[in-house]
Amino acid sequence: MVNTGDDFEHLGLLICPDIDTVTYTLSGVVETQQGWGRAGESWNVLDQVEKLGGETWFRLGDKDIALHLLRRSLLEKGLTLSEVTAQISQTMAIDPPIIPMSDNQVRTEVLVDEGVMPFQHYFVKQRCQPRISGIRYAGVEKAAAATGFVDALNDAELAGVIICPSNPFLSIDPILALPGISKLLRNMTVPVIAVSPIVGGEAIKGPTVKIMQELDMPVAQQAIADHYNGLISGLIIDRVDKETVSTLKKSVAVHVSETVMTTTEQKVSLANQCLAFIDQLEKCS
Amino acid sequence: MVNTGDDFEHLGLLICPDIDTVTYTLSGVVETQQGWGRAGESWNVLDQVEKLGGETWFRLGDKDIALHLLRRSLLEKGLTLSEVTAQISQTMAIDPPIIPMSDNQVRTEVLVDEGVMPFQHYFVKQRCQPRISGIRYAGVEKAAAATGFVDALNDAELAGVIICPSNPFLSIDPILALPGISKLLRNMTVPVIAVSPIVGGEAIKGPTVKIMQELDMPVAQQAIADHYNGLISGLIIDRVDKETVSTLKKSVAVHVSETVMTTTEQKVSLANQCLAFIDQLEKCS
Repeated sequence: MVNTGDDFEHLGLLICPDIDTVTYTLSGVVETQQGWGRAGESWNVLDQVEKLGGETWFRLGDKDIALHLLRRSLLEKGLTLSEVTAQISQTMAIDPPIIPMSDNQVRTEVLVDEGVMPFQHYFVKQRCQPRISGIRYAGVEKAAAATGFVDALNDAELAGVIICPSNPFLSIDPILALPGISKLLRNMTVPVIAVSPIVGGEAIKGPTVKIMQELDMPVAQQAIADHYNGLISGLIIDRVDKETVSTLKKSVAVHVSETVMTTTEQKVSLANQCLAFIDQLEKCS
Repeated sequence: MVNTGDDFEHLGLLICPDIDTVTYTLSGVVETQQGWGRAGESWNVLDQVEKLGGETWFRLGDKDIALHLLRRSLLEKGLTLSEVTAQISQTMAIDPPIIPMSDNQVRTEVLVDEGVMPFQHYFVKQRCQPRISGIRYAGVEKAAAATGFVDALNDAELAGVIICPSNPFLSIDPILALPGISKLLRNMTVPVIAVSPIVGGEAIKGPTVKIMQELDMPVAQQAIADHYNGLISGLIIDRVDKETVSTLKKSVAVHVSETVMTTTEQKVSLANQCLAFIDQLEKCS
């Protein structure tokens, strides 16, 4: 289930940064250094867009543009974003289902000194420099969680839910803000766990810590546990924060693991730790 | 004033083959051998579209796609096709105004044995092989001629109108079919001339002759004069057809010139011949 609050219209295309990063990662073509886009990209289209006076601050490589053209044409044929994403996944031989949180438009906007700023303008164009005083997910009240998403949460064989160590405010909260989703998670009969995005007071990636500070939150594991309070029964924190376990409130079970994922082995290992933690919570409940 | 009946939606883009060919030609970047698209193109996007299972029968190079993305994004900002075309022209330092015949959607369709076929499917995908029994311009009754087009025809300084040697059925008739345009041309107080697309019983380019045969028209200068009967006061035919001048009905003035344009000099020369012919018709009227 992937956040679509980061999506936006640009150069006449529907850009879905989170869906595409997951798609490119799972199909093994992601550019690993920058963590988005495709490896071995060329930039012929964007070079020409620049010559024609168009916007180039959002970097779209030629191969990436091919996928965006296909997405646009499939959407215009009447397919939902879920259907388009599934079709592209199939073409790229990706096994696990990648499901957009919603087939309706939700757009994350940040409140900064100058007013309301669309998310990608804040995130990419302004490189997260403006100070955030609030975040909103425009359209979320009227959006419906994707059918595939709700079906998965209601699946009789569901063993648990893992909230990944993404930015809670930018990548997780838009999903939780969808009508009915928080309630569904609160009423889950299987464990819901989160992997903390904070490691030793730092975020692995992106502006999580900066935003926590701007929103007057302590940059600590307890703040993450509080943020997901009532939704999760377990929190996985990194080894470097092992000492803090004893200081955390007992409202949530805590599991210590290596959470920094650089290699595939580390990714597989953390996934297995998550499954084991879910098993353990299930047995204790 | 450029035909837009050939336009179509493809890969999520609005393709405007005639506007773009004129744009690329006037800006000096056209691929001269094939006569469409840009010189020195690369095909990275389309190669990837193919790998993703998308349609590749309509060839769009990377630079060409850049222009299409700009067009799409400007249209989505609410600009008309006329405004978008003007903006792109300006960026490409093109002096003469390039004006789409209409800002509304008109789509040329050909009637073939299988039924109705969209124009580009006939023209590009099927390489003009199906036999045509009729042609229609879907939407033309409800379309309005572009403001810039009507303004140009009503311009007090207008010296004359030149109908270029394009395919009469595919490239000129959609323009003439726009509400009010034929009447405006019929009532012109300045000369309206056409350059014949037929040279020695052959068409310089494209399926003009094949279509004339399929529509049971004689492939002759008289047929072109008849086709534009009432609209034009003068017809320019090629030197090789000099002998036929005496056989043509006297309803239209005829001027003999070299009409095959390969070099820039030939293009400039024919343009000057057109202007001189208009001058001469004006003086005789």
